[in-house]
Amino acid sequence: MSTTSTVPAALALASRLIACPSVTPATGAVFTAMEEMLTPLGFTVERFVCGEAPDGPVENLLAVRDSGAPGPHFAFAGHLDVVPPGNNWTSDPFTPELRGDLLYGRGAVDMKGSIACFVAALAAAPGLPGTVSLIITGDEEGPAVHGTVALMERMAERGVKPDLCLVGEPTSVNRLGDMVKIGRRGSVNMWITVNGMQGHVAYPHLADNPIPRLLRILTAIEAIELDAGTDWFQPSNIEITDITVGNPATNVIPAQATARLSIRFNDQHSGAGLVERIRALVEAEGGVLEAKISGEAFLTAPGTFSTLISNAIQTVTGIAPELSTTGGTSDARFLSKLCPVVEFGLTNATMHKLDEAVAVQDLEQLTAIYGDILERVLAN
Amino acid sequence: MSTTSTVPAALALASRLIACPSVTPATGAVFTAMEEMLTPLGFTVERFVCGEAPDGPVENLLAVRDSGAPGPHFAFAGHLDVVPPGNNWTSDPFTPELRGDLLYGRGAVDMKGSIACFVAALAAAPGLPGTVSLIITGDEEGPAVHGTVALMERMAERGVKPDLCLVGEPTSVNRLGDMVKIGRRGSVNMWITVNGMQGHVAYPHLADNPIPRLLRILTAIEAIELDAGTDWFQPSNIEITDITVGNPATNVIPAQATARLSIRFNDQHSGAGLVERIRALVEAEGGVLEAKISGEAFLTAPGTFSTLISNAIQTVTGIAPELSTTGGTSDARFLSKLCPVVEFGLTNATMHKLDEAVAVQDLEQLTAIYGDILERVLAN
Repeated sequence: MSTTSTVPAALALASRLIACPSVTPATGAVFTAMEEMLTPLGFTVERFVCGEAPDGPVENLLAVRDSGAPGPHFAFAGHLDVVPPGNNWTSDPFTPELRGDLLYGRGAVDMKGSIACFVAALAAAPGLPGTVSLIITGDEEGPAVHGTVALMERMAERGVKPDLCLVGEPTSVNRLGDMVKIGRRGSVNMWITVNGMQGHVAYPHLADNPIPRLLRILTAIEAIELDAGTDWFQPSNIEITDITVGNPATNVIPAQATARLSIRFNDQHSGAGLVERIRALVEAEGGVLEAKISGEAFLTAPGTFSTLISNAIQTVTGIAPELSTTGGTSDARFLSKLCPVVEFGLTNATMHKLDEAVAVQDLEQLTAIYGDILERVLAN
Repeated sequence: MSTTSTVPAALALASRLIACPSVTPATGAVFTAMEEMLTPLGFTVERFVCGEAPDGPVENLLAVRDSGAPGPHFAFAGHLDVVPPGNNWTSDPFTPELRGDLLYGRGAVDMKGSIACFVAALAAAPGLPGTVSLIITGDEEGPAVHGTVALMERMAERGVKPDLCLVGEPTSVNRLGDMVKIGRRGSVNMWITVNGMQGHVAYPHLADNPIPRLLRILTAIEAIELDAGTDWFQPSNIEITDITVGNPATNVIPAQATARLSIRFNDQHSGAGLVERIRALVEAEGGVLEAKISGEAFLTAPGTFSTLISNAIQTVTGIAPELSTTGGTSDARFLSKLCPVVEFGLTNATMHKLDEAVAVQDLEQLTAIYGDILERVLAN
């Protein structure tokens, strides 16, 4: 039983990471802690800082261990930044505290806990063949401009190209292992502006109210059914999230009306195609459209990689995970351009909430699952 | 020519009223000036103050002169409050200044000038039979809660009931005498609120976006054609004047959406009827409606009174006035409940603007027209 004292356990590693405050965008101590965990395991660690306020500075960490022995290149991706804790926590959000079977602290599940499990799994399995890399950013919860995108540029410069990538986001819903993400919907926000001419409501013929034109645009948008979903994706969805006229005077016809949309779309669509489709409706009424594509949809079609991960989960937990594409975006939207990407991690019930916490048993089981995945990918 | 020195001219009276600052709601000095003009002409003057900040205090003045000789009761209605002057006047807005043929000052046309003309006309025609009254408020430009409505209550208490009422609002457009108002459209503002349930755009099935329901309500409202106008009124009109969601977050489905309407309606409709019609559309989508009726439509059908006024205008100016119901609301909306009401006064080109001004010739001609109207109503 000597291994229990020399191999770092996920609980200790997670506690150490939580103890380094790292509200997004993150730099410094939490990355130093990470580097100090990886170097003893044979990794070459490169850290670099990108961007300036308010989106930065953002620290990124790329760690690579080439065993020298032939085998695939397996990457684990994650983030050390956390969302702001908010007030009224039971205990300090950046002082890890074990109460009963739960470890409390900001980032416990999203996703310092998952990173700790992956490091613990590596520590428990020395001598793996092939190559392992860790792609760790300090800006996943923020605008994500200087984070994983910058890491991928650095990887291209260094010739670091994984064959498979596991993102450690908290994908489990009710029990550890019940859900794996094999894709994500894309996301695009759009801003519509319709200009008119201000005037007095008593003299409408001397004014041009932009609101009726905006209404026609929005009604046409509401009537769109983008698709009925696919085998792996729910239907694409358009939400009108804001309308602003900003006219305080009851007797004034306003000069401008604006609206904002958010579209979450599956792999039947591209962000650019949706922008052009909406732009045509907007311009038909003399409006102007601006758009920002946050990410394209991606799908790692169910196959060898997802089956391998499902088998590892089932071996440790007895649960057959659902392969899902639901939820918001993650950095997997970027990484999917490199290689097949699957996301799997802790339960997400407390993520972004007060008193974020992870079960000690989940940390132990996730370490075992990650170890089993490493074994299946690299040693077989 | 001794009368020119003893009979006060409209120019002097208008200057005296302009020199008393009286931004709405008005009290005090300007009413004292008014009282001092009317008492020597044989009027019994009653002044009273109503309301409190912010809508008040408002001063009102009721002046009645019963000649003792049989004849109709003719009322002149107006207001001594003015809209705020704003900045950058060429000369001080409350220091009447004659430059060329124009008298400058806030209220020159709206409507201290008209009041001065009426007083000058009375002064020039002593010995008229019948009864003359002046119904003068300090709150026409504001919320009009404590103004003419309060005066009418006082008149009811005193048994003061005119047979005809002339409102001295600046109804002329390009030349003095080109337009008389024989009615006004009604006005009602409505506020629509649709409540939903907030949520994340990535999980629309867990939220209830109120915007699509608001869109359906507003589209149904936009499709309404209230009427095609009448012989004396332009078509009633609905304007959507504001929409507010107030959701700053691109990834959030909002909890509430609101809109505001302004309807200007002719005598084919009542405010209450319109409110119920819109309420039905709003409630069909689970929305809530609030409404405030500013005034009902009224029409003094063309006939003896309007013909008499047209004839007086034509006698003095040579112009046959257009009988109109256009424009915003005025206190005539209240007074029309008492007796037939017609509105006629100075040109409105500079009202509510910087460097408000009245032509001296217009003051002289309007005095002559008001004198001719008094003669035709009372002496014949």
